[in-house]
Amino acid sequence: MGSDTVTDQKAAKSEQTRTLILETALRLFQERGYDKTTMRAIAKEAGVSVGNAYYYFESKEHLVQGFYDRIGAAHQAAIRPILERETDLQKRLAGVLTTWLDIAAPYHEFAAQFFKNAADPASPLSPFSAESEPARKQAIDMHREVLAGAKTKVPAELADVLPELMWLSQMGLVLYWVFDRSENSEKTRKLAERGAQLTTRGIVLARFRVLRPLVRELHELFADFLPGMAQVAVGRKKASDPDAGPEEGPEVG
Amino acid sequence: MGSDTVTDQKAAKSEQTRTLILETALRLFQERGYDKTTMRAIAKEAGVSVGNAYYYFESKEHLVQGFYDRIGAAHQAAIRPILERETDLQKRLAGVLTTWLDIAAPYHEFAAQFFKNAADPASPLSPFSAESEPARKQAIDMHREVLAGAKTKVPAELADVLPELMWLSQMGLVLYWVFDRSENSEKTRKLAERGAQLTTRGIVLARFRVLRPLVRELHELFADFLPGMAQVAVGRKKASDPDAGPEEGPEVG
Repeated sequence: MGSDTVTDQKAAKSEQTRTLILETALRLFQERGYDKTTMRAIAKEAGVSVGNAYYYFESKEHLVQGFYDRIGAAHQAAIRPILERETDLQKRLAGVLTTWLDIAAPYHEFAAQFFKNAADPASPLSPFSAESEPARKQAIDMHREVLAGAKTKVPAELADVLPELMWLSQMGLVLYWVFDRSENSEKTRKLAERGAQLTTRGIVLARFRVLRPLVRELHELFADFLPGMAQVAVGRKKASDPDAGPEEGPEVG
Repeated sequence: MGSDTVTDQKAAKSEQTRTLILETALRLFQERGYDKTTMRAIAKEAGVSVGNAYYYFESKEHLVQGFYDRIGAAHQAAIRPILERETDLQKRLAGVLTTWLDIAAPYHEFAAQFFKNAADPASPLSPFSAESEPARKQAIDMHREVLAGAKTKVPAELADVLPELMWLSQMGLVLYWVFDRSENSEKTRKLAERGAQLTTRGIVLARFRVLRPLVRELHELFADFLPGMAQVAVGRKKASDPDAGPEEGPEVG
């Protein structure tokens, strides 16, 4: 028991140091800019050795991944009450989107100056990068849950593609937010509400079979051209059905 | 007559100087980066006085507008044969998109480093800015012509909104191109072909009335949240009907 306590204490201390480095980094990124902030400066400001800083975060990019994870975890916790109680699709979607805006609000300024590093899909900081896959997967799963718990029923043939399209729309919303100068990001909040409304209407319209191939093709286009999307699609396929063929049957048009 | 010739010669000389300054600026932007290139350096390299450079271009931003205009004019000329001969909607659209990629190819490197200045919708360099309105309007009119000359008929209630949505998709294509590292932008070319195919299928599906409100609402959402879109919509409204009220009720986004 005594050694367990020591291990617990060490883990807690380690977590504390990790958090300290991350928070210091975020503060310096905001004050000095992402490009101009070095790991050395972060370590110095946090009062740890450079070696220690690198032990927790291999690079500045890893710090940003840590930042994504933090926002993601806080968001996941904050949306639980909405996902557990609300059954109206539009309200569920608007709820998770505006909650994200609440969680991310303190980092708005950082996001604007950091954007130019994340906009390039080849950057590890892009939401489409291999490095961002855990955060991306979590966000897509959230949209799957938004759909699954709603009264509005989703056609089976769209159940796989809609969460990824919804995540893509969310990335559009985040891009809008990055450049939104309105007080308290009011414009982005309205866009989230309107976007949730429009998405819901689109999903309701999907009861018309004629529309479905178009939605599937749109998804296919994104999956073929955005590396992250394809990864998620392939990963899910493998996980759910090891014998499954390619994403599409021979004829879905 | 003699004085006309002198005027002509002066105009030609003036146009020559303007072109020289613009070409020099583009070269320096590519070599040194947009942010690091000053008007002074451009003037020096072009062999004109700084005052002369400012006479032709008030600022670096105006140089970039000059660059947009140049690409736009070259594009307009290059697509004439397609728009005059081709009647298949998908081929018309794919044609104008891939022709743009041909015209813009020499500036690909510049576009990538320049992107961070143009991504902010509040920047005069953004395709959504007031300063970019002439270029934007020209591009939207081109999409209107793509539709008007095609065999596929467009429902009247979508005739106004589709060209703007098509232009927005084209901006998505340009964004993709900016970060595309494939040889000769092959991936973007494929995306243009696929996008043209998907757009055409969507327009064909618009014969189903149930879909049309969704397309209109999508357009309305963009018009309410992207300043440039709203401007174009309002401008058109005013031009076609002087008594028309604003696009929306009293409260817009």
